Amino acid sequence: MTTSASDEQARREQELVELVVHSFDSSPDARLQQVMASLVRHLHAFIRDVRLTEDEWNVAIDFLRRAGDITDDRRQEFILLSDVLGTSMQTIAVNNEARGHATEATVFGPFFVEGSPEVPIGGDISFGATGEPCWVEGSVTDLSGAPVPNALIEVWEADEDGLYDVQYDDDRTAARAHLHSDEHGKYSFWGITPTPYPIPHDGPVGQLLEAVGRSPMRAAHLHFLVDHPDHRRLVTHIFVRGDELLGTDAVFGVKESLVKDFVQHPPGTPTPDGRTVDGTWSQTRFDIVLA
Amino acid sequence: MTTSASDEQARREQELVELVVHSFDSSPDARLQQVMASLVRHLHAFIRDVRLTEDEWNVAIDFLRRAGDITDDRRQEFILLSDVLGTSMQTIAVNNEARGHATEATVFGPFFVEGSPEVPIGGDISFGATGEPCWVEGSVTDLSGAPVPNALIEVWEADEDGLYDVQYDDDRTAARAHLHSDEHGKYSFWGITPTPYPIPHDGPVGQLLEAVGRSPMRAAHLHFLVDHPDHRRLVTHIFVRGDELLGTDAVFGVKESLVKDFVQHPPGTPTPDGRTVDGTWSQTRFDIVLA
Repeated sequence: MTTSASDEQARREQELVELVVHSFDSSPDARLQQVMASLVRHLHAFIRDVRLTEDEWNVAIDFLRRAGDITDDRRQEFILLSDVLGTSMQTIAVNNEARGHATEATVFGPFFVEGSPEVPIGGDISFGATGEPCWVEGSVTDLSGAPVPNALIEVWEADEDGLYDVQYDDDRTAARAHLHSDEHGKYSFWGITPTPYPIPHDGPVGQLLEAVGRSPMRAAHLHFLVDHPDHRRLVTHIFVRGDELLGTDAVFGVKESLVKDFVQHPPGTPTPDGRTVDGTWSQTRFDIVLA
Repeated sequence: MTTSASDEQARREQELVELVVHSFDSSPDARLQQVMASLVRHLHAFIRDVRLTEDEWNVAIDFLRRAGDITDDRRQEFILLSDVLGTSMQTIAVNNEARGHATEATVFGPFFVEGSPEVPIGGDISFGATGEPCWVEGSVTDLSGAPVPNALIEVWEADEDGLYDVQYDDDRTAARAHLHSDEHGKYSFWGITPTPYPIPHDGPVGQLLEAVGRSPMRAAHLHFLVDHPDHRRLVTHIFVRGDELLGTDAVFGVKESLVKDFVQHPPGTPTPDGRTVDGTWSQTRFDIVLA
């Protein structure tokens, strides 16, 4: 295998790229034409850059076949693949362009459920989910700093075993709820201290991660979806400062601005709302700025 | 949607690219690291270039799911996808670098079968396959022009209905055979005049072609595999000059150097080997240069 192609070779390869790109010229859908032409240019550039061998092409085709085989109503290996290549997160990024100091977005994930229970300000979203109690408080403001009252705040997270309620066989609803910011844009609730968990890694994506020496673990996080009719909908997480997985999150969801201090309190420490907690509890603050 | 990202936005997007690329840094397999890093760079560049929407990402994920659903032991939609994006042909191209005036390679296709019958020089490979008889002759030489005697020449093609023998439910062997070049590097055989046929287009790949206004038809062709211990193995086709599908071959297999004149003869025209043919017949020449 050679890594430098002769002029004639380069001409043949480029001629092929142009032939394929222009095969989309008569597409009745201009956007589809644009997307396919760009996809073709980038895929061909990849093949030419690495001088992909025919054996490697076969491995790639077989990888896709196996991803298709394991995919069903409950398992979507192609989403996992997109996640671990960072392409899910890049799609989120290009659809949530930076606007001033608006809170950054991150991946939605597969565990959001419509119709979560409503809790009042200061309510408990755990509904029996196991884990260390965690007091979460903050504000919702706009880019000018003005409070956003009555913003919808959906929150959901895994329990201390790293499992979401929907991953259990019973029909439990736990560690998920929604609430609304008050007239000053403030909110607070009791949840549980986030714990790390792996993405499903018993399929081809897990094999890929293992082959390249990467961990399937996600950094511990708490999901937020914040919405208000006058503002851009925000889908994000907060992460736990000090979590050793922050730098190797399997799906690249971590943004420095979303890493928060989770203050640990020893047993017996008075809580912000006077609730009695057996054992340790934690506390964090997440001020949300909507664009 | 905007097409120009702010500096901050561009910084965030590029930071994500670098994070993902470097996630492969501790791969124990240096080649896998190189391939994955390049794939990630090109896929992210694609997403950023077209500002892929989340709806479009969903369509892409669903396309892959559906391609997986239709794939089984007899149908491989991911290969078809690679074919219609020209990525199969580009992989062939980078693995068959131009060497002087050596005959160009093209796609192998799914219809080659090991263990074809042997025919002598001037023999008939059709074995009952329907179609207009076609006399094929030529020489096998090396780059210096010296004859290559005893080169293995495998040939296979579709019948006049556009079907290969293996696409029928019986166990027929037809329109495929192998022969060897003679002591002067010459070869000849009777086959059938190639006819166009569509790639399987009742699945997601067919839907994609339809959505972009592309035809699923392959230009008419005759497959060659030419091998000799002292030379590089050649996998190629010859195409029929004047075929209106030459410019729109669904898998981009056509190379100008592989388009040949197929001379049509009226009924009763004497044949090169004195064989009696009822009706019309055609004739072509393919001189093969091995690298």
